[in-house]
Amino acid sequence: MSYKLYIPGPVEVSEKTYQALTTHIIGHRSQDFVALYDDIQPKLQTLFSTTSPVFLSTSSAWGVMEGSIRNLVQKKALCCMCGAFSDKWLEVAHRCGKQADGYQVEWGKALEPEAIRKYLQTGEYDCITMVHNETSTGVMNPLKEIMDVVREFPEVISVVDTVSSFSAVPILTDEWGIDVVLTGCQKALAIPPGLALFTASDRALARAAQVEGRGYYFDFVEFKKNHDKSMTPSTPVLPHIFALKSKLEDIFEEGLEARYARHEKTNAMVHEWMTRNGFELFPEKQFASKTLTTVSNNRNIDMNAFNKRLKERFQMVINTGYGKIKGVTFRISNMGDETEETIGELVRNLDAVLEEFTS
Amino acid sequence: MSYKLYIPGPVEVSEKTYQALTTHIIGHRSQDFVALYDDIQPKLQTLFSTTSPVFLSTSSAWGVMEGSIRNLVQKKALCCMCGAFSDKWLEVAHRCGKQADGYQVEWGKALEPEAIRKYLQTGEYDCITMVHNETSTGVMNPLKEIMDVVREFPEVISVVDTVSSFSAVPILTDEWGIDVVLTGCQKALAIPPGLALFTASDRALARAAQVEGRGYYFDFVEFKKNHDKSMTPSTPVLPHIFALKSKLEDIFEEGLEARYARHEKTNAMVHEWMTRNGFELFPEKQFASKTLTTVSNNRNIDMNAFNKRLKERFQMVINTGYGKIKGVTFRISNMGDETEETIGELVRNLDAVLEEFTS
Repeated sequence: MSYKLYIPGPVEVSEKTYQALTTHIIGHRSQDFVALYDDIQPKLQTLFSTTSPVFLSTSSAWGVMEGSIRNLVQKKALCCMCGAFSDKWLEVAHRCGKQADGYQVEWGKALEPEAIRKYLQTGEYDCITMVHNETSTGVMNPLKEIMDVVREFPEVISVVDTVSSFSAVPILTDEWGIDVVLTGCQKALAIPPGLALFTASDRALARAAQVEGRGYYFDFVEFKKNHDKSMTPSTPVLPHIFALKSKLEDIFEEGLEARYARHEKTNAMVHEWMTRNGFELFPEKQFASKTLTTVSNNRNIDMNAFNKRLKERFQMVINTGYGKIKGVTFRISNMGDETEETIGELVRNLDAVLEEFTS
Repeated sequence: MSYKLYIPGPVEVSEKTYQALTTHIIGHRSQDFVALYDDIQPKLQTLFSTTSPVFLSTSSAWGVMEGSIRNLVQKKALCCMCGAFSDKWLEVAHRCGKQADGYQVEWGKALEPEAIRKYLQTGEYDCITMVHNETSTGVMNPLKEIMDVVREFPEVISVVDTVSSFSAVPILTDEWGIDVVLTGCQKALAIPPGLALFTASDRALARAAQVEGRGYYFDFVEFKKNHDKSMTPSTPVLPHIFALKSKLEDIFEEGLEARYARHEKTNAMVHEWMTRNGFELFPEKQFASKTLTTVSNNRNIDMNAFNKRLKERFQMVINTGYGKIKGVTFRISNMGDETEETIGELVRNLDAVLEEFTS
């Protein structure tokens, strides 16, 4: 049985994108690949709001998260922690044998620029990692305000995971001075999982060139060297790159402003459903994500049963929480290609199932 | 213009496999994913001839080649070098900050078991890497004979890249005592690139558990921990896993013996074409690959022009050599789904184009 995903990744994939996966393959060292790379690269740079190269990594975003640590940390990393994914980044840094400290805020709270300033003022750190939109808690951190602080410290290379916010809200890579923006393809880009994308500033590439033990697969310098030939260091996941080409057409046909507005509107519809039904936001309201909603299950609904019923009756699924807040929260995604119409249908169905559970 | 690839990867993909890529996505932490994993796992174990787990890595094979170094080398690696891919492995080991030496044979020659014994007898090495079928030179190393030697050294963990031989010839992982067999999906498995597969013996996993700095993305211990839940450590490349499921059906429907015989037969047809036209094998005959043929361009044909004409006239391409033997060799693949009929068509077309170049 096929059912529609309203989970915070992977998200629903359009028929056009599925068909793009079946594009006849080409040699990845051929001129056909060079042409494909050259076609998508400027569009990616526009979408990432950068003049730096945008690299294609055949991996999930975790690969690039680890790669950032291996490439960019010489002294010590400051890992900003506000949920399952950002918390784990500190552990991964340690597993790579790097010095790293955590700046932890309570789950549901956002990172505080002033606290980050205090850490960086110690002069101990040469790299900072953070997750823009923490997919577990539904917090969207105040990235511009954080970067205003980080830019005061020229030695500090900034790495921002935008896995679940990328292309759904404006992220001004160059203007805000972010060195590395990384994302996956299975969230707001609505491509099946298997490809990660990231930018690297000149500063980041210069740092990488000095760091020992980068290895090969996620070596930023190798990415740049191959980028200059419009290629990837290793054999790339071709179907996803064809799908990305297709999706970039869709994105620029819609227009970025319209795309951002659509996410804002559909997110508001989920919030409206939540409030109308007496549920509360898990994160602080001012820092609530625009791409997914983490809802406190303050009505103590049996969310596993709820979700099962939603799937059975309407062939749709939401998510019943992640990590240590599984069960006490649930999550609804409005990422990807969702429209007022499709989110409208979802909330009507949520209403219908909720009625069964509360009547 | 679409054209058919007879290059040593990626190889031609069947319509059934393309369609499998478009299977409706599922959550990778859902029971549907567990069911998918459990369906393919025993088939993969049969195909890998092992009772050890077979792990799915969202990466190219290089990721697992690097991962093997990071997970398994405590003292020093011996990297056996006989072509572009195996040669580079030594460099990658050094880039990971590991101690490693190279045992180099001339390109076109095979690795010698006795030479390997001499290296290992020094007691310096706790890991050995090699490429079974060196895709650049077309050499298929005598893996059984090499493993007969390696097994004499219980401290030495063996890692064998079977990227371009896997599933086309018998590779008896457990019987020969290979600790890690790794492969990609875009060669003999005839799936578009983007997924790597590998086995890890208990010995390999025990070693990994003791090695510092493994990181996360390619951490073998994480793969095992998630395997025990029928999941992958990071978000997996779902379309390729659906395609793998489809391809495993094809493979077992054909039967392994018939599959091996088909590769043997189609390879012989390419050899016959080569000999009939006065070309010579690049590798030593007794170690010639069964999945691809690296041909010495002893007739000094302009292979770029030849290949261009083959593409133009028959919508087919072969490969004009790799690395330092580009131009002086060319390569023809019989990997994947090729049959006597399709290879027969290829060699007829090669004949026709050759006539243009020599008349």
